[in-house]
Amino acid sequence: MRTKTPEQAEKILAAARRLFGSQRYHEVRMEDVAAEAEVGKGTLYRYFHDKEELYVALLARCSEEFLKRMEEVVAGDGSTRERLEAVVEAIIEHFDGQPNLLNLILRAEVMAEGGGEFPWQEARDRTPRLMVELFRDAETRQEFAVRDPELMALVLLGGIRAVIRFGEQPRTPGLAARIVENFLTGADTRSTTPVVGRKSTSAHSVRF
Amino acid sequence: MRTKTPEQAEKILAAARRLFGSQRYHEVRMEDVAAEAEVGKGTLYRYFHDKEELYVALLARCSEEFLKRMEEVVAGDGSTRERLEAVVEAIIEHFDGQPNLLNLILRAEVMAEGGGEFPWQEARDRTPRLMVELFRDAETRQEFAVRDPELMALVLLGGIRAVIRFGEQPRTPGLAARIVENFLTGADTRSTTPVVGRKSTSAHSVRF
Repeated sequence: MRTKTPEQAEKILAAARRLFGSQRYHEVRMEDVAAEAEVGKGTLYRYFHDKEELYVALLARCSEEFLKRMEEVVAGDGSTRERLEAVVEAIIEHFDGQPNLLNLILRAEVMAEGGGEFPWQEARDRTPRLMVELFRDAETRQEFAVRDPELMALVLLGGIRAVIRFGEQPRTPGLAARIVENFLTGADTRSTTPVVGRKSTSAHSVRF
Repeated sequence: MRTKTPEQAEKILAAARRLFGSQRYHEVRMEDVAAEAEVGKGTLYRYFHDKEELYVALLARCSEEFLKRMEEVVAGDGSTRERLEAVVEAIIEHFDGQPNLLNLILRAEVMAEGGGEFPWQEARDRTPRLMVELFRDAETRQEFAVRDPELMALVLLGGIRAVIRFGEQPRTPGLAARIVENFLTGADTRSTTPVVGRKSTSAHSVRF
């Protein structure tokens, strides 16, 4: 009766995901999680000492899932550009599919201010590195060469975050491809048109 | 004795800025704010009913200051590209100059989840619009033309946020100019080299 099983931990985490995903943090009560998971309150507390611990465990799980998905996409088939588009698309889809995930991360970040654990840290550290690895692959395969790879990995990921958080809903088709196109070739329409002397701002060299 | 004066409100906000800027939210006590502002506790509470109200007022002030600075830079001299670089630089400098500001915003965002006021909202809404106006200026003046202006304003601002939050410190000189250069002409080094057929991934058309 008193042993812990992985199955029961899974049931509890799944219940926590449903509740934290649909309610505000302070609205979620441990007894609701127990009821949702169909376990006794005593059982729940054997697995997680308090709501914060449960919350941290849930977000650690979310972080693992996110990284697993990213690594699968990065390891996928296709040109590096196709894989970069697939990564951007997967990030957007992942957060769109769990609309409360960004809020969970925000709250965990604020809670961690007091010195606590920030369970999204691994995802935060590894995602830019995955991007930089993709950029390196592109160079090795002579597909494209990103200037300032570390800086631009951050810029691209921050841009994607802003789109997820504040961008138009529903998403327009081809959104990820447009982001990557603008990222690689420039948001300035002139930059995709090979015009000699296009750095000039003279009206004569610019097409409108 | 019981009247409120703008001067006293300023003193209190300045004290709150120093304390919230250097301590974690839960560490800041109203009596410390009163002492720092050199007013009595009763006086402090006449201006702000509780710590949250004071916090919201402080962040509303920060939001006004930020927008005022942005509008000044946007209205400045120079080409649109120079003004865009100046805006990017001003955003980075503004947040670097108040290292706790992003945390203040994060916390306010989480606090507002419960339905409260989010005093950074105006800055959040207006900054992308200022960017889009800059992009329009650039078109009018035939300097550059941004594809997907609303989308790319978000992407650029999100990218800047990520650089502020996670980028290398101390900042490298010319950071804002590099961000704008990569934004307009593309992170791919090939995209600044006008090569006919540069969309080809054939090794022959790529310079390494």
